[in-house]
Amino acid sequence: MRRIPGWLLLGLAAMTAALAAPLTVTSPDGTLTVSFMVDDGSPRYGVTRFGRDLIGPSALGFVIHGAPPLDRDFRVTAESRRTIDETWVQPWGEQAEIRCHCRELRIELTGAETAARRLTLVFRVFDDGVGFRYEIPAQPGLDSLAIMDELTEFALAGDHRAWWIPAYQPERYEYLYRATPVSEMDRVHTPLTMETADGLFLCIHEAALTDYAGMTLARRAGHILKADLVPWSDGVRVRATAPLVTPWRTLQVADTPGGLADSRLILNLNEPCRLDDVSWITPAKYVGVWWEMHLGTATWGSGPRHGATTANAKRYIDFAAGHGFGGVLVEGWNVGWDGEWTRNGDLFCFTRPYDDFDLEEVCRYAAENGVRLIGHHETAAGIANYEAQLEEAFALYERLGVRTVKTGYVGYGQQIRRVDEAGRVHHEWHHGQFMVRHYRKVVEAAARHRIMLDVHEPIKDTGIRRTWPNMLSREGARGQEYNAWGGDGGNPPDHTTILPFTRLLAGPMDFTPGIFDLHFPEARPGNRVNTTLAKQLALYVVLYSPLQMAADLPENYRARPDALRFIQDVPVDWRHSRVLHARIGDYVTFVRQDRHSDDWYLGSITDDQGRILEVPLDFLEPGRLYVAEIYRDGPAGDWRTKPYDLEILAQPVTRETTLHLRLAPGGGQAVRFRPATEEDIHPLKEK
Amino acid sequence: MRRIPGWLLLGLAAMTAALAAPLTVTSPDGTLTVSFMVDDGSPRYGVTRFGRDLIGPSALGFVIHGAPPLDRDFRVTAESRRTIDETWVQPWGEQAEIRCHCRELRIELTGAETAARRLTLVFRVFDDGVGFRYEIPAQPGLDSLAIMDELTEFALAGDHRAWWIPAYQPERYEYLYRATPVSEMDRVHTPLTMETADGLFLCIHEAALTDYAGMTLARRAGHILKADLVPWSDGVRVRATAPLVTPWRTLQVADTPGGLADSRLILNLNEPCRLDDVSWITPAKYVGVWWEMHLGTATWGSGPRHGATTANAKRYIDFAAGHGFGGVLVEGWNVGWDGEWTRNGDLFCFTRPYDDFDLEEVCRYAAENGVRLIGHHETAAGIANYEAQLEEAFALYERLGVRTVKTGYVGYGQQIRRVDEAGRVHHEWHHGQFMVRHYRKVVEAAARHRIMLDVHEPIKDTGIRRTWPNMLSREGARGQEYNAWGGDGGNPPDHTTILPFTRLLAGPMDFTPGIFDLHFPEARPGNRVNTTLAKQLALYVVLYSPLQMAADLPENYRARPDALRFIQDVPVDWRHSRVLHARIGDYVTFVRQDRHSDDWYLGSITDDQGRILEVPLDFLEPGRLYVAEIYRDGPAGDWRTKPYDLEILAQPVTRETTLHLRLAPGGGQAVRFRPATEEDIHPLKEK
Repeated sequence: MRRIPGWLLLGLAAMTAALAAPLTVTSPDGTLTVSFMVDDGSPRYGVTRFGRDLIGPSALGFVIHGAPPLDRDFRVTAESRRTIDETWVQPWGEQAEIRCHCRELRIELTGAETAARRLTLVFRVFDDGVGFRYEIPAQPGLDSLAIMDELTEFALAGDHRAWWIPAYQPERYEYLYRATPVSEMDRVHTPLTMETADGLFLCIHEAALTDYAGMTLARRAGHILKADLVPWSDGVRVRATAPLVTPWRTLQVADTPGGLADSRLILNLNEPCRLDDVSWITPAKYVGVWWEMHLGTATWGSGPRHGATTANAKRYIDFAAGHGFGGVLVEGWNVGWDGEWTRNGDLFCFTRPYDDFDLEEVCRYAAENGVRLIGHHETAAGIANYEAQLEEAFALYERLGVRTVKTGYVGYGQQIRRVDEAGRVHHEWHHGQFMVRHYRKVVEAAARHRIMLDVHEPIKDTGIRRTWPNMLSREGARGQEYNAWGGDGGNPPDHTTILPFTRLLAGPMDFTPGIFDLHFPEARPGNRVNTTLAKQLALYVVLYSPLQMAADLPENYRARPDALRFIQDVPVDWRHSRVLHARIGDYVTFVRQDRHSDDWYLGSITDDQGRILEVPLDFLEPGRLYVAEIYRDGPAGDWRTKPYDLEILAQPVTRETTLHLRLAPGGGQAVRFRPATEEDIHPLKEK
Repeated sequence: MRRIPGWLLLGLAAMTAALAAPLTVTSPDGTLTVSFMVDDGSPRYGVTRFGRDLIGPSALGFVIHGAPPLDRDFRVTAESRRTIDETWVQPWGEQAEIRCHCRELRIELTGAETAARRLTLVFRVFDDGVGFRYEIPAQPGLDSLAIMDELTEFALAGDHRAWWIPAYQPERYEYLYRATPVSEMDRVHTPLTMETADGLFLCIHEAALTDYAGMTLARRAGHILKADLVPWSDGVRVRATAPLVTPWRTLQVADTPGGLADSRLILNLNEPCRLDDVSWITPAKYVGVWWEMHLGTATWGSGPRHGATTANAKRYIDFAAGHGFGGVLVEGWNVGWDGEWTRNGDLFCFTRPYDDFDLEEVCRYAAENGVRLIGHHETAAGIANYEAQLEEAFALYERLGVRTVKTGYVGYGQQIRRVDEAGRVHHEWHHGQFMVRHYRKVVEAAARHRIMLDVHEPIKDTGIRRTWPNMLSREGARGQEYNAWGGDGGNPPDHTTILPFTRLLAGPMDFTPGIFDLHFPEARPGNRVNTTLAKQLALYVVLYSPLQMAADLPENYRARPDALRFIQDVPVDWRHSRVLHARIGDYVTFVRQDRHSDDWYLGSITDDQGRILEVPLDFLEPGRLYVAEIYRDGPAGDWRTKPYDLEILAQPVTRETTLHLRLAPGGGQAVRFRPATEEDIHPLKEK
């Protein structure tokens, strides 16, 4: 029998004739309970864990243009329940097999006066969190509707510590996370991660964002958060036609930070794969003409320092072929970059290369060397211009054997130009329905041409890679490039210890790790990469992406073949992934098992504080001898003073071994565990 | 080569002729460094970890009555170093073998003007912390000295979060721990535990407190702490004769709370065992005439409800004999309790029983049943009265075969009456040199009579059990009894999740767990025990004590033989102890291996928040099958509403098993892991 949370009992005490008894649905393990009630005609929900409030009584509903609000005068006219327990397989990902196990409660609300008004709520309660969504059935006067506001609230049980980035800002999602009490937030993006005073970890986000506005969170009095849908320029939040199904609003909860990172709830709330054939979707590592532009030693635009030349592309292809990288990205290859390119949204041509870049020849040379060009579409947020060329652009790449395209949306200013049918110009937010539609349109067009996407300046990930597995990776946070030119000193050492528990809870991130030359006194004297070399290697395991770049220049890798070895070995597709221990903003250790071998990989990173961490290797197969290939900070390692102090060693380990990790300030450790071979055994025995 | 901390470089920049170059000594693993310098004649020290400050430049020295202060005009005249690496065995304890591995730096200071003034500092740097002490060599004018102040400072690197109890209070150490920034403390007791913003855990305490004043910590401006020695009534802090060796001042540091609890630094800084024969020192579990007095259903004093009657004692002896308890405590057996007993410090007689208590017969009956009486000396802080009877009292017990004596010092008011040679009356603090001398005198007297001690209202533990292993256990914090009559609602659910990382860092604690009847509506309607039943069992593993009481009444145990089974099985002497995971004030999980079998035991407890915790059983022996006897909260368990919801089950496990702990709000889990027997194997296989 389920405990009814305190606030509901109070609610019941103040019961009125219009108050229906609460409906509850509980997670399979019995710890999480969603309670739903209609309070004087208004739908309310709450969430408890072990009978303690996580979310107090919170509002639900909508304000619709020209119609009575969908948040009152309701009664429950139908309720249905089911248990979902199925295991599905990701074609690629951080985990191969995923179990979806939850209890669902579906509630149909009908207008108390008029049976015409209808609203449906669906709650799914997992052991690791809750998802709920609205369905607005077709009904008189709502066949075509304009949602002016979504009233969903999250009445947090306390003023939790939150890690957040502000919404409605010019740099989109690209801000350092701030850690403050919820009461110091204003309007923030999701995923919003929180730590309660007694050590629970919560994350509010959304799943399956399709033809709808992105949800940000606005703080109301105290620590009540409200869904704040990013509006169109005319103030409408969502334009739709009934029946409408909203994205899932999600609350993940765990006893440890790792519990959030290991949760697959967002994927479980997305639709199954829409593609019949996914054989062409292949995660890969890549290099490319990119970092030199961020260092300022080459340019995207044409001219004497143009990076995207046929010769330079071939230089990267040679390096890629020689070191086992599957892809070579070339940015700045196409006409449109000259001048202040962020203003060139209407000028980019996605089929016409610059004269010094022979696209056909580069693709031919790549194929000849067993490498594929990674295409690049920088739109400068010129949406109409890009959409007009979309089919042609993807068709060109498809014909040339390009399988992956990196897109970019660095617009001038914070809003995006939209020209309507009547030719009127509007300025839209980056994260509203207009852009959500655009990003989805690109995903679907790409799929038709067997193209995988790596979207920079994206809409946040809400797990649609399950439905559209060609949607591989995204940026959507401060990546490596901020270390090259960030006027603010770049990413501090704690940045990458926060990302796995904030940005990456949404999905994979193309952070572009692997910088070996951490200082650039000529190119960018004022900047540096604020890590040790070992930490750059560990990031390949810590920051999951199916497309993982080796972001530095070939010459810098050739100078450190010993360290490069790890980047060549580390996979980008996993059978299992697990956090071993973490403190958000301080340190984190991930282990992942290669999808295509018995190898395991460990990545551990820390902030400015050096650490000694113990790792029992209980993830290894019992009774099997492994060789641990360890890349760690040296005894004097310190990102400030000795960032290149790297020790590489191999040692025999088994499941019984406990590894002692010694992370230097701003440092890390990367380890490959491979089953020992005959050749290993003899020398190892001699040790 | 060691990094010199920033503040020292600054110090050097401002170098004067009088400033010697810093001397540094580093831990065996290279992470911790102590730096010592003489700054313009004044000794200073600091501590860094991974090159980051833990303790900034901090003062050292003394103010001596009638002599020039020992904190200035010094120069370094000798320095010596050595490495200590030895493993020693505890006759009993939380761990059998203990490795002492540290680097020592010994510095001799001599007066700059006059070679007569001398002061020696000894630093020992371990991987898990630092200890340092002073030696004041015999020197002209200081053969007999009065220390007016010890100037030792701990300049913390930040305003850390601290768990503390206030010093100079009437209830001695018996307060709930407060968690605040250091800047909100005034004068506090040690151990003082702190958590830094970037996730380091620190503890300041002292080791080997012998003929000296107890050290409390007074906060100076900001987050600088200063040694505040508890003074004699005349203001003198310490009376001594040179040569004088002070206790060790200790700083423990770890990356996790468990790292503090698993540290043996305090013991390693104590002197080796002084006793030739320790065969008579035997940890044990006990029951006794105690809880009924706290419930108010019996009295310590004589009368109709007198608890310490021959008949009642025999009733407990029968229960003890029947359930394998080695000892029976009987409080209130001796003359002196009548009236307001806390004022009877001069009236207690430690050799004369009340008429209804036949001491000889009780001891005979106990022996006949294979049980030993646990003696009891409540002094009501009448020190002179107790010391006058000490030899006689211990001799009596020795003759009667009593091996353990529980002492008590519940004085009226916060200070202790001392009558000097001239018959003048003084009032002394509980934790000053006067009482330190008394407590040590009792330990040594007890040892002569082969008596083990369990001291309530004690001086804090500083590890002298290594030197005097008959000093078994102490109270020195809010124990179980506060749940019976604490006017403040008793101990909240988080109390026992804080104790292992504060009070118990000093040493074993006689908390007296095991209350089964959690409500007492007749006896104490306003009070209850704020845990589940399962949590009471888990406390036997979480709160280490070589003397562990089953504190409830025999009838309450007879009502729950299923739960009592765990208390009967759990040992009190361990080969290994380890914290698996913890958040101070939220939850903690300990595992310990029995010293005398291959069994392992697990205890996990939580605060008001229910938890799901995962425990890989990697501490078990590889390739061996165990039976896990699990005592856990039931699905509806909750200390508020369903505290008795206890599930007991047995399941086969191996080192490869991961146990999922489900702790109810205010709950816990206790597990015994025993190697499977032939009888187990067959039925287990059938499951």
